[in-house]
Amino acid sequence: MNLDAGEQLPSPHLPVSRAAESLRSSAIRELLAVTNRRDVISLAGGLPAAEGFPVGRITSTMSELLDQQPEVVLQYSETEGYPPLRQEIARRYHASPEQVVITNGSQQAIELALRATTNPGDVVALADPGYVGAIQAISLSQATMLGVSADRNGMDVYRLELDLRSGRRPTIVYVVPELDNPSGATLSLDRRKRMAELSDTYGFMIIEDDPYSHLRWHGEALPPIATSCDRVISVGTTSKLLSPGLRIGWVVAPPDVSRRIALMKQAVDLHTSTLGQHVVYRLLAHSFLEDHVEHLRALYRGRAAALEAALHRHLGDGISFLSPDGGMFIWARLSAPQIDTARLLPLAIEAGVAFVPGSAFAVSAEQRHPAHLRLSFATVPKNLLDEGARRLADVIATA
Amino acid sequence: MNLDAGEQLPSPHLPVSRAAESLRSSAIRELLAVTNRRDVISLAGGLPAAEGFPVGRITSTMSELLDQQPEVVLQYSETEGYPPLRQEIARRYHASPEQVVITNGSQQAIELALRATTNPGDVVALADPGYVGAIQAISLSQATMLGVSADRNGMDVYRLELDLRSGRRPTIVYVVPELDNPSGATLSLDRRKRMAELSDTYGFMIIEDDPYSHLRWHGEALPPIATSCDRVISVGTTSKLLSPGLRIGWVVAPPDVSRRIALMKQAVDLHTSTLGQHVVYRLLAHSFLEDHVEHLRALYRGRAAALEAALHRHLGDGISFLSPDGGMFIWARLSAPQIDTARLLPLAIEAGVAFVPGSAFAVSAEQRHPAHLRLSFATVPKNLLDEGARRLADVIATA
Repeated sequence: MNLDAGEQLPSPHLPVSRAAESLRSSAIRELLAVTNRRDVISLAGGLPAAEGFPVGRITSTMSELLDQQPEVVLQYSETEGYPPLRQEIARRYHASPEQVVITNGSQQAIELALRATTNPGDVVALADPGYVGAIQAISLSQATMLGVSADRNGMDVYRLELDLRSGRRPTIVYVVPELDNPSGATLSLDRRKRMAELSDTYGFMIIEDDPYSHLRWHGEALPPIATSCDRVISVGTTSKLLSPGLRIGWVVAPPDVSRRIALMKQAVDLHTSTLGQHVVYRLLAHSFLEDHVEHLRALYRGRAAALEAALHRHLGDGISFLSPDGGMFIWARLSAPQIDTARLLPLAIEAGVAFVPGSAFAVSAEQRHPAHLRLSFATVPKNLLDEGARRLADVIATA
Repeated sequence: MNLDAGEQLPSPHLPVSRAAESLRSSAIRELLAVTNRRDVISLAGGLPAAEGFPVGRITSTMSELLDQQPEVVLQYSETEGYPPLRQEIARRYHASPEQVVITNGSQQAIELALRATTNPGDVVALADPGYVGAIQAISLSQATMLGVSADRNGMDVYRLELDLRSGRRPTIVYVVPELDNPSGATLSLDRRKRMAELSDTYGFMIIEDDPYSHLRWHGEALPPIATSCDRVISVGTTSKLLSPGLRIGWVVAPPDVSRRIALMKQAVDLHTSTLGQHVVYRLLAHSFLEDHVEHLRALYRGRAAALEAALHRHLGDGISFLSPDGGMFIWARLSAPQIDTARLLPLAIEAGVAFVPGSAFAVSAEQRHPAHLRLSFATVPKNLLDEGARRLADVIATA
């Protein structure tokens, strides 16, 4: 095989699965290339702040592990995950270790949860705007997406109820109840309870994804839906807590579902990095974690405040958004009615600032969120947040 | 959610996908539990020798990386993989970097290659006996398996040709041409050439999986099928070269196929461990590798010779096998016609020795390989190899 980079084999000769055909390159993906350009201030990223990685702890823990038990941490290991790590996760969810499967980041947790429960043509409901990673995984499952409108209290569960009453029958409802991406909304308590009741009545399962709750600096976390419903697959990750590069996530699910997910995990990649799991276990069980989380909250809170102030300063009434209670993003709406953020993006990049347009989070073709954009403050120093907002204001003014 | 370990929700209430239903717990999987028992000498494992892990190099390389660029190696990274690693892999395959996608071990490479090309109901051909990981991945794809008989020259490609002429139309032919698992066979040159021709004639793609060729100590590696055919997805791994716990594998495929696999990879787990990829890149590009490979070959060769001698010593004419040219396994046949190795296994475990029965590698229901067993010498010290063979002889004598 000696093909030049640009050369393509004639496609009709190569088999393509329906699963492969279900995926298109995402807007996020194209944008990620841009974020590497030095002259662009990227508010488009989904990366956590590298200053928040506990580098010293990770380094010393890895050295210890490689010194103490290299024959373990460099070897193949159990598909379900490192037992003490499963136990630690189970403890945090008031579940049993048998319900836990460690995954290659929470993206794999979402994908395996879908793949274990959903057939092509099934319906999967989620908030619209929705998390891009979930949209990708649902697309791959060849399920039909049912977008449910959302507001400052999260997914409109009563709107979902109308869909259910009118005969829509989702197999899965995917939800990020704490500090949703992109909206930042937290699902209200009454909606959580109603969703649990609807799950029992209509027989769907809930994928409850929670990557951000430890990054909350305002208000209180509400009880997870899993505390009031047995039909929940909880998904978690240490990507925003410790390091995304380690790729450690998990599902916590009813035992039958966990067993099926573990069997699938064996077929898809045998197991998650042994060393990564051991490192994460030692750090999760370590007392430094509390201080570390406080440090992360302060870091993100400070940057969020800086971006908020900069947006108010440079855009004034031209933009509206809710002050974030945590997380990494501001979900904002431009006031100028003629502006489509997807069309604005190339101009913005030319002016040296990037964001993710609302359309990247669109679940349904009817609602493309053309006035919206997602701005990340997570990785950008305060002075550049101000300059980024200034450039954004400039490009909007001339659009 | 607060389910006790043993409690099960009533299954009918929870959705189960057809993909999940396609998987059963494998014999290997059940056996892996056994291998942890101290009193059992396990010749059943598929693990490489921990003494072969370059622990010092891995430790110093990780420390360097975490010291020099923690903000890179702990961060999210490109779905396709770390560009210099892709380039290094491409160089080894005489391919372009765009053709390479780094995966979470070669199991994910196999699974994504199948998933990108194969629909439920399609036919996938492979040698019978076949690699358990491939059988699991094909099962998950809901394809129909076409087992092709094999001999000391590997898959009987002329038998495959008869199947093709009689109208069978595989989408994919999966093959391990160098030191196949479990058979140890190397696909002969004429069969490689014929397979390439058949691929062009009948339109199937070939997944050419090569985990073991660097562990060859006898004979010469033959040119990969990919050198004479454009319809090949090459699959590789550093699991037996450096460390399986790092989970680094790859595909090298025609550009169209690589792009589709990368899109799928994004939806299934975003990317492979950043730190793991950086470590593997530095080690693959390092001059120590040549000596390291020599060390591995000597280690495995010595153990293979010890197991061979022990089997001859304790079982004599009761067992027959080809002397392995490399790899980690002896694929052996018991002479006693009444013995079924699957039934022998529980007795053997009771007698303190474990192996993998032939049935674990069976592709078709008609040919269960009841007289065969796979014996791994990779992780067992020489004195225990002898004792293991002695116990095996005892249990066969009384069976």
